[in-house]
Amino acid sequence: MRLTILGCYSATPRTLNNTTSQVLEINNHMFLIDCGEGTQVQLRKHKIKFNRIKHIFISHLHGDHFFGLVGLISTFRLLTREADLHIYGPKGIKEVITMQMKLADSWTNYNLIFHELTSDASELIFEDEKVEVHTIPLNHRVYTNGFMFKEKEGNRKLDIDAVEEANIHVAYYRKLVQGFDVVNEDGVTIKNETVTKDGIKPMSYAFCSDTMYKEDIVPTIKNVDVLYHESTFLDKHAHLGPKTKHSTAKEAATIAKLANAGTLLLGHYSTRYDSLNAFKEEAQEVFSNVELCEDGKIFEF
Amino acid sequence: MRLTILGCYSATPRTLNNTTSQVLEINNHMFLIDCGEGTQVQLRKHKIKFNRIKHIFISHLHGDHFFGLVGLISTFRLLTREADLHIYGPKGIKEVITMQMKLADSWTNYNLIFHELTSDASELIFEDEKVEVHTIPLNHRVYTNGFMFKEKEGNRKLDIDAVEEANIHVAYYRKLVQGFDVVNEDGVTIKNETVTKDGIKPMSYAFCSDTMYKEDIVPTIKNVDVLYHESTFLDKHAHLGPKTKHSTAKEAATIAKLANAGTLLLGHYSTRYDSLNAFKEEAQEVFSNVELCEDGKIFEF
Repeated sequence: MRLTILGCYSATPRTLNNTTSQVLEINNHMFLIDCGEGTQVQLRKHKIKFNRIKHIFISHLHGDHFFGLVGLISTFRLLTREADLHIYGPKGIKEVITMQMKLADSWTNYNLIFHELTSDASELIFEDEKVEVHTIPLNHRVYTNGFMFKEKEGNRKLDIDAVEEANIHVAYYRKLVQGFDVVNEDGVTIKNETVTKDGIKPMSYAFCSDTMYKEDIVPTIKNVDVLYHESTFLDKHAHLGPKTKHSTAKEAATIAKLANAGTLLLGHYSTRYDSLNAFKEEAQEVFSNVELCEDGKIFEF
Repeated sequence: MRLTILGCYSATPRTLNNTTSQVLEINNHMFLIDCGEGTQVQLRKHKIKFNRIKHIFISHLHGDHFFGLVGLISTFRLLTREADLHIYGPKGIKEVITMQMKLADSWTNYNLIFHELTSDASELIFEDEKVEVHTIPLNHRVYTNGFMFKEKEGNRKLDIDAVEEANIHVAYYRKLVQGFDVVNEDGVTIKNETVTKDGIKPMSYAFCSDTMYKEDIVPTIKNVDVLYHESTFLDKHAHLGPKTKHSTAKEAATIAKLANAGTLLLGHYSTRYDSLNAFKEEAQEVFSNVELCEDGKIFEF
């Protein structure tokens, strides 16, 4: 699992700071999460192949998470994309994108499929053989979802020595990795766990931005390997949280602790702060394994 | 008159190439012309004070001329702008911007005044004591206007020696610079031209993008000091002009010649060309005074 931070600042793009956008590579998928203005240029800078992006998840319709989407869709068209593009985001996203295509008299030559979200409860919005994506309803000024990306339990791994010793025909190997017991060449039932080992541990990533402190999300993200949680403010500005519906670094860390997360990534910093270290230090008072997002940083898990 | 090229490439923003946007400083106005994605960052890079922009002119609603507008309006709001902002552009521009503010539940705290354009004839859309702006109806895939910015004839300049010799009371100086004849202290009528000289020559700038070759615009831009005319293609790709409704460098130069322009600026280059020199050379075969726009270039006239 690899996460590329294209932008992690709040409010407005600046000369050196980009607004929210991330690329999550998980099990051969390349998911784009949020799409602030300038995301297409950030994708180019990081040499991410446009064609590999087939699913875009938009948390909410504030500009710093969304104003780059119409340009990206338009650029895909100009580059004569053919692959379907799925967009997941709040109700209204289809109308606003469609209106701009209509005004420009420029319709995509590929299928643009909108999945508009309206539920206030977590729901499964994408699933294939290997990965599933659930929404994480957040608490912000407008309707907002985070997204929980989960690898499914993979196949079990054969213990080749044990399999051969148990005299199992090769035709049954597939059933073994799928976790079934099988009957061997001598007609004896072989228990799966005696001849297989656990496969690769499935990974999970939760993206939570923007939101004020919301403990309700903990069951949805319980035991997540990597949690990105917004931390717009430091605790000294905690009074701004409820007003603007954002979180502090301390609150992000509290959620990470309650959820028993593996790693906490912080981001969506207000540009009022000169240095980011204070965010990390504040969070580490509550939860030890904290990393700071920065534009262009790549995390491998 | 000073022109800053924020972006001058066509189609899509890239790592080093920005799409169309220009800032024209003329007679204390700072007019923003077109607003491709990333314009707000380009403005910051060039240290252009956001507050000085009070009028934005949008030629048409294709993304490379327009996708940065909603972000700029939103950033002005976040920076607690108070001054009115006037937007001139094709019908539809108000609805698409308003819809995005509504979806974000983020309304501007300053007055946002839309001037929607629909006419196919040149019209006066802005005027104050010193400057006027007329549309230049163009021929593109969607409804498109160029813009003609003209300084008005300024006051005449007093010939102080002549004025004193003619024995004119100081109370009449104002009428003199306004061009009127006056009666002197001896009761004699003094012809204006005998005691005043021409004032500073008024300047004009015509912005013509996007358009295919359209001779009809010549009367509107006749004798313009500086003409920006798009040149998406070189003559070897002239066959693409009518299809995409764009011009070649040669066609831009022909318009400049017919209009008796002072200087021709080329821009809106297709990114298919590696070097821009060929555009200049091609245009100079028709019209000698040609300059190439490049991102970040500043022209002083």
